[in-house]
Amino acid sequence: MVRASTVTSKRDVWRLSNGALAAEAATVIVEEPLQILVDGTPYSVLMRTPGDDTALAAGFCLAEGLIESRAEIGSIQSCAAEDPNQVAVTRAGARASEGPPARPMQHAIASSCGLCGRELIEDIAKNLPPSAGEYVASAQDLLALGRRLQEEQRYFQPTGGTHAAGLFDASGELLAAAEDVGRHNALDKAIGRLLLDDRLGEAKVAVLSGRCSFEMVQKAARAGIPVVAAVSAPTALAIELAERAGLALVGFLRDTTLTVYVEAGRIEGLR
Amino acid sequence: MVRASTVTSKRDVWRLSNGALAAEAATVIVEEPLQILVDGTPYSVLMRTPGDDTALAAGFCLAEGLIESRAEIGSIQSCAAEDPNQVAVTRAGARASEGPPARPMQHAIASSCGLCGRELIEDIAKNLPPSAGEYVASAQDLLALGRRLQEEQRYFQPTGGTHAAGLFDASGELLAAAEDVGRHNALDKAIGRLLLDDRLGEAKVAVLSGRCSFEMVQKAARAGIPVVAAVSAPTALAIELAERAGLALVGFLRDTTLTVYVEAGRIEGLR
Repeated sequence: MVRASTVTSKRDVWRLSNGALAAEAATVIVEEPLQILVDGTPYSVLMRTPGDDTALAAGFCLAEGLIESRAEIGSIQSCAAEDPNQVAVTRAGARASEGPPARPMQHAIASSCGLCGRELIEDIAKNLPPSAGEYVASAQDLLALGRRLQEEQRYFQPTGGTHAAGLFDASGELLAAAEDVGRHNALDKAIGRLLLDDRLGEAKVAVLSGRCSFEMVQKAARAGIPVVAAVSAPTALAIELAERAGLALVGFLRDTTLTVYVEAGRIEGLR
Repeated sequence: MVRASTVTSKRDVWRLSNGALAAEAATVIVEEPLQILVDGTPYSVLMRTPGDDTALAAGFCLAEGLIESRAEIGSIQSCAAEDPNQVAVTRAGARASEGPPARPMQHAIASSCGLCGRELIEDIAKNLPPSAGEYVASAQDLLALGRRLQEEQRYFQPTGGTHAAGLFDASGELLAAAEDVGRHNALDKAIGRLLLDDRLGEAKVAVLSGRCSFEMVQKAARAGIPVVAAVSAPTALAIELAERAGLALVGFLRDTTLTVYVEAGRIEGLR
């Protein structure tokens, strides 16, 4: 487990109030690089808040298509004693014999015919888990999950510097939640935690504290999570990927309002 | 210039209001990949809102340390007719003879002794432009610049999905502003615009609509901008880099309040 002191730190600051700057103490969120090694080869460096690093690496590898399931992880180790900013993942089975993976975006970069959002979507759609079945949520359910994630956030109130992601099961139980300086990392950590515990199949709704870009829908789709609800706006490409992948996509999830961008047969009253 | 239709798009959505879902039309922000070629070699793919792509590529190359000045850009071309999602940068002078650059983070990844925030900071500090001199801002000046950037934002109100960055000169004039689905891109676009116009030396304050992570301070430091003011929280590593690089760093820039995290001799009343 992470000590709180590695997640936040204290700083002396000056706050302007009633027109005057006065000295105060502030709590800030920690950001450090994490190097992820896959099959012995450096694959990526993420800027993240320390903690749940093995879950982050597992979720990241799933999103990147480096693994498809828990069974394809041979070992996953934080090298905390020697290097607190490194996690080594080795792959098992057929994956292990593939040799070290190419760098992120290598495929996209290698494309000779240019690059567009539609190609990215088709590329991801080729390689998604089977449909998550008949799960349907009501708008009122989703509002309740948004409130539940807010209750779970420990670091946003003191620092103002974190994003959060929460994964819920079909009965609305919170299965995993994470906070991080990066919204991609928060979702990878929550997904990776369930992947490592072999419970990812139970996750039906991902609630995100911020905006929903293309990559956030990619992560949910790769994890087989059928409903994504974000507190802020989705992008046009995120909406298109949700449509293609059969995910429901909800934005502007607030106290009493929300907007359904893609219903995918999964929102009560819209089927 | 970008047509508005490439920046936003319309979607049919359902909005929950007074407990009922009703059909509506919504405006969403466009997100598309941009491939950046440097000296003929694919260097990176950014997820960005189309528009100002050459400025984005120029600002990105400056932040990455691929160029130090306008003079090191030989040519910079959007291939819009063939491929709207590609920009080709060629470098001039001594840079051109270096050969194509390594991929992003290659250096950090190649480090054999692990990786930590302090190393990243020292690495960036080795390679910064000369100090930006004696510029000093008052807290009231900064509040006014925050309001000015808000007035400039065209896409946030309709979409809720953009970040903004504005660069101001010593007299508080707005020199360049940009909006993008990514906050890194917004800052790169504003910096790149001034770099291409050979006016980057005039920029004294960068105002950011969101949070301030390590990479945002890196971009300002590499551009020689001495004051960074963000509407939301900075991270601990962003604060440490600002201290090391001699930048003033302000967070939670709101209507009548702000917090000074690093004064660096550049905030009136704190020197």
